[in-house]
Amino acid sequence: MSKITQLMKNEAFLAYSTYTAIVLLKMMLMSLITIYFRLARKAFSNPEDITALGNYETAKKYLRTDPDVERVRRCHLNDLENIVPFIGIGLLYALSGPDLSTALLHFRIFVMARLFHTIAYVTPLPQPSRGLSWLVGFVVTISMACRGLTTGLYL
Amino acid sequence: MSKITQLMKNEAFLAYSTYTAIVLLKMMLMSLITIYFRLARKAFSNPEDITALGNYETAKKYLRTDPDVERVRRCHLNDLENIVPFIGIGLLYALSGPDLSTALLHFRIFVMARLFHTIAYVTPLPQPSRGLSWLVGFVVTISMACRGLTTGLYL
Amino acid sequence: MSKITQLMKNEAFLAYSTYTAIVLLKMMLMSLITIYFRLARKAFSNPEDITALGNYETAKKYLRTDPDVERVRRCHLNDLENIVPFIGIGLLYALSGPDLSTALLHFRIFVMARLFHTIAYVTPLPQPSRGLSWLVGFVVTISMACRGLTTGLYL
Repeated sequence: MSKITQLMKNEAFLAYSTYTAIVLLKMMLMSLITIYFRLARKAFSNPEDITALGNYETAKKYLRTDPDVERVRRCHLNDLENIVPFIGIGLLYALSGPDLSTALLHFRIFVMARLFHTIAYVTPLPQPSRGLSWLVGFVVTISMACRGLTTGLYL
Repeated sequence: MSKITQLMKNEAFLAYSTYTAIVLLKMMLMSLITIYFRLARKAFSNPEDITALGNYETAKKYLRTDPDVERVRRCHLNDLENIVPFIGIGLLYALSGPDLSTALLHFRIFVMARLFHTIAYVTPLPQPSRGLSWLVGFVVTISMACRGLTTGLYL
Repeated sequence: MSKITQLMKNEAFLAYSTYTAIVLLKMMLMSLITIYFRLARKAFSNPEDITALGNYETAKKYLRTDPDVERVRRCHLNDLENIVPFIGIGLLYALSGPDLSTALLHFRIFVMARLFHTIAYVTPLPQPSRGLSWLVGFVVTISMACRGLTTGLYL
């Protein structure tokens, strides 16, 4: 019924959507890690989440923040702040007709940098490991924007 | 001048962009609900927002957090954390040539799950209603990722 | 090897991806402003970030929130909450075959509104400048959604 579009014959675009999906799966993992730490540390945000832990008076001490939960949440938010630009700028970049090997290099470095960023944040590893992995992803995105805007600029 | 592209003849892609727009309109509603609760509860974040409520000394008590405002904001952030993956992974999925009825099933379940999640979060409904609605949206996104990555994988 | 797709001949789509990239570059600037204020105000979130400031006992006073850092972070989050809908709804809009000059008007007003919103938030300018710039971006996105959903509606 529906058929694969012209786009799927564009290898750079195919690579873009594949790596986007992979880095978003990584981001979705943060939700699971947050749930794990909320249960393990008994630290919840909503009164309705603690009813299974006893009556409200005895359970309300679990309505609290926990350093590990907050750390994972900061990592998750940092993902959002960096992956959303990758998706939007990557679309322009992929459609600007980049050399396939250059495009793959950009996408692979970005995904690896974000993977390493998560490990550095959640472990945590000593700085500057987290800072540098963030910077690598940031610079890759800027590089894609430069190529996309100089090639396809339309204002 | 501009004309409808090939993409718009791809029904799965058309359905993808339609449901993406609908679920994003739902997310934008969270901004309006936040504004409503900020005004109703008189709970603001910025000093410049309370100047209409009197001079700074009498009004600065309104620079505070309110449980209802924070609840809506958590719901809004949860939307971002789940709808961004749906958009990015849905793009790959829609272009991977899925069966149209299967694609519609994915998109409709996702949008309904997020609608119900919002109702369960803001009301609030007793758990596990919010947890389950979150899980349904999460699993639908994983399912789209599996199909997209196995069909169109390009690494 | 890869070649420019049909999409890049669609001027409205080209304009959409260009303005998306520009507004995302603006959003990425928020990360740099956050880093600047964290360093200038010595206000950090993670213990591993303050090791360069002395031993943990003397440096742990820098694990704190600062009003300027929090202000930039609220602006950054507001960007995410508004630019993600612009990207998702803009995709449907751009593919719905809008008149090019109307499309450009939407994209330009949105990007200028978000630029002004950032200036109004970070300075800060007196209200309602920030509120109005937020509203303009919000209404532009709703307008794109109306056009996209009435033209290409597929449910």
